[in-house]
Amino acid sequence: MRTVSEHGLEHLALGAAVLGTGGGGDPYVGKLLAQSAIRQHGPVNVVTVDELEDDALVVSSAMMGAPTVMVEKIPNGDEVIRAFKALEDYLGQPITHTTSAEAGGMNSTIPFAVAAALDIPLVDADMMGRAFPELQMCLPTLYGLSASPMAIADEKGNVAVIETIDNLWTERLARSVTVDMGCSAMIALYALTGAQVKESMIAGTLQLAESLGRSIESARREHRDPIDVVQSELGGVRLFEGKVADVNRHTQAGFARGECQLAGRDAGKDTSLVLRFQNEHLIAIRDGEVVATVPDLIMVLETETGAPVTTEELRYGFRVTVVAAPCDPRWRTDEGLAVVGPRYFGYDIDYVPVEEITRAKSS
Amino acid sequence: MRTVSEHGLEHLALGAAVLGTGGGGDPYVGKLLAQSAIRQHGPVNVVTVDELEDDALVVSSAMMGAPTVMVEKIPNGDEVIRAFKALEDYLGQPITHTTSAEAGGMNSTIPFAVAAALDIPLVDADMMGRAFPELQMCLPTLYGLSASPMAIADEKGNVAVIETIDNLWTERLARSVTVDMGCSAMIALYALTGAQVKESMIAGTLQLAESLGRSIESARREHRDPIDVVQSELGGVRLFEGKVADVNRHTQAGFARGECQLAGRDAGKDTSLVLRFQNEHLIAIRDGEVVATVPDLIMVLETETGAPVTTEELRYGFRVTVVAAPCDPRWRTDEGLAVVGPRYFGYDIDYVPVEEITRAKSS
Repeated sequence: MRTVSEHGLEHLALGAAVLGTGGGGDPYVGKLLAQSAIRQHGPVNVVTVDELEDDALVVSSAMMGAPTVMVEKIPNGDEVIRAFKALEDYLGQPITHTTSAEAGGMNSTIPFAVAAALDIPLVDADMMGRAFPELQMCLPTLYGLSASPMAIADEKGNVAVIETIDNLWTERLARSVTVDMGCSAMIALYALTGAQVKESMIAGTLQLAESLGRSIESARREHRDPIDVVQSELGGVRLFEGKVADVNRHTQAGFARGECQLAGRDAGKDTSLVLRFQNEHLIAIRDGEVVATVPDLIMVLETETGAPVTTEELRYGFRVTVVAAPCDPRWRTDEGLAVVGPRYFGYDIDYVPVEEITRAKSS
Repeated sequence: MRTVSEHGLEHLALGAAVLGTGGGGDPYVGKLLAQSAIRQHGPVNVVTVDELEDDALVVSSAMMGAPTVMVEKIPNGDEVIRAFKALEDYLGQPITHTTSAEAGGMNSTIPFAVAAALDIPLVDADMMGRAFPELQMCLPTLYGLSASPMAIADEKGNVAVIETIDNLWTERLARSVTVDMGCSAMIALYALTGAQVKESMIAGTLQLAESLGRSIESARREHRDPIDVVQSELGGVRLFEGKVADVNRHTQAGFARGECQLAGRDAGKDTSLVLRFQNEHLIAIRDGEVVATVPDLIMVLETETGAPVTTEELRYGFRVTVVAAPCDPRWRTDEGLAVVGPRYFGYDIDYVPVEEITRAKSS
């Protein structure tokens, strides 16, 4: 166990937003929310997955909705507590720990706010090893574990508890409620035992995010290339360097969907990269060829600072570098690809691991 | 207290569908559902509002959605029990009675199925004195009583419990969930004490429905005009007699919305009546003049048999008589009209009680 105080969140929010692959929420807002809770209630005890008792009751706390809305409709911090308490009441037993559903600027920091406010420890883990746009896209789904009962709350005081026949139905009902709540809401979901957490989640995501953030920060200070750092820590490849030439984005059915066009120069020739996204980056197409797809991580970073750029922040003229990195191996199985592969998102493309695409291109 | 067995539901379903003003569900399906539950579990004890203990816990059970869908997606009877039990669990105390949210072919009979299956008494009352399309359109809303927590369930096994800041929000969230569930779902809502039921609900609606159904049946048998019976029992007026000339209907946002054109002859001249509906009939326009609006009851009856015609059943060529009757006086207050008056439904019309319109026209 370690204790995380207000200042410990700086690097973590930065690194988590890199892992968020364009989604997972704004790291600045997320950091402020968690810091404010820690200032008010005291520091947070973070436990590793190994330290968890098998009979612990662990619930993920997260934000749900369209990031385009979230940056303007900033949570006040009470919504997530309301969702958490509603689920605890529904379960009829005390929730012993909280954890993260995904890695992301907000979704890695919100659980700190919950842990601080409710004085419960936070488990250093997440269910994706990145961010994905839908609730069923969590590794526990592959283990037959249920996302529901889940609770959802808004800033006005509305709450719903949903219990469904499968995790796709959880997503479906929660998404409609999220849209009604103003396209962003706070949720508590995947009530798992400690044993189930150990079996199905990814351990150490917070530690990874913090280390990544710290390395980016050091590189900046020491005038090294921060993008090299991201690439080497995540075993990734550079896909592209260039300027944002166009962004086409719309908020639809509770998601931010769209396409971003990047323009660059390589060996004296004009080159292009197209990114398609649904909250997170789903696919990268370089000069007409697919060079990375979900579930691999596609990360857009400011070329100069290595700062992650979320999909809702993308703007004409930004100078960015796109890095891709391998996802958790469980997402690469047939069962995993059925949940988060390119075909689930409507692309008629077979998934090929990013390192294989790169190897094929360079040979 | 009286006991209602299988056969006692024949007249009740017929009369309730008249009071349903075009909505409230199909009386045939409603009757079968309740009769099947009574056959399986035994007769239902019906108590009057006066017999109710002040500390009773009374919950309404109902169907929610678009009647156009409900006639094809027939409930199996388990959904409403699931909703009822989910709300009971959420409340954390036993529900002692069920009752009707509204009068209607299904919504007056479904509570019999719940009462039979759960072996609890049914309170002879409803919250509208008719049917209305939205959840907040219940008299308890005028008393500041809450529709939520409410539970909603589908035939697949999905359940949600919703707790909102006001009854409009209950409607909003429950409507979205209903649409996801396939445009029809079963609900349990308005958990009220016996004292609150006495204060805010309409007593004796089941008795009224049964008596109305019995009178229509007697009139048919004795070759009297069954429409005279409806008119005199409800203190109503005949608005129109004619044939259905056109029906324009669409299922939208969980409602059946549309318009029905009737054509008739009066004193050697062609006459017309236009009915606009949202599940229930909202407004009647005769030869270009508004002759009745919500919250007054606008009932379409088969001219020959007096059988109520629901909005989803309206078809070209049907010979019908339209009768309007006064609503509960509480709906005619400013507070009532804000909830169910013509302006709430988007019509730029002042509400005038149907008997005043008739008096003005005949003078």
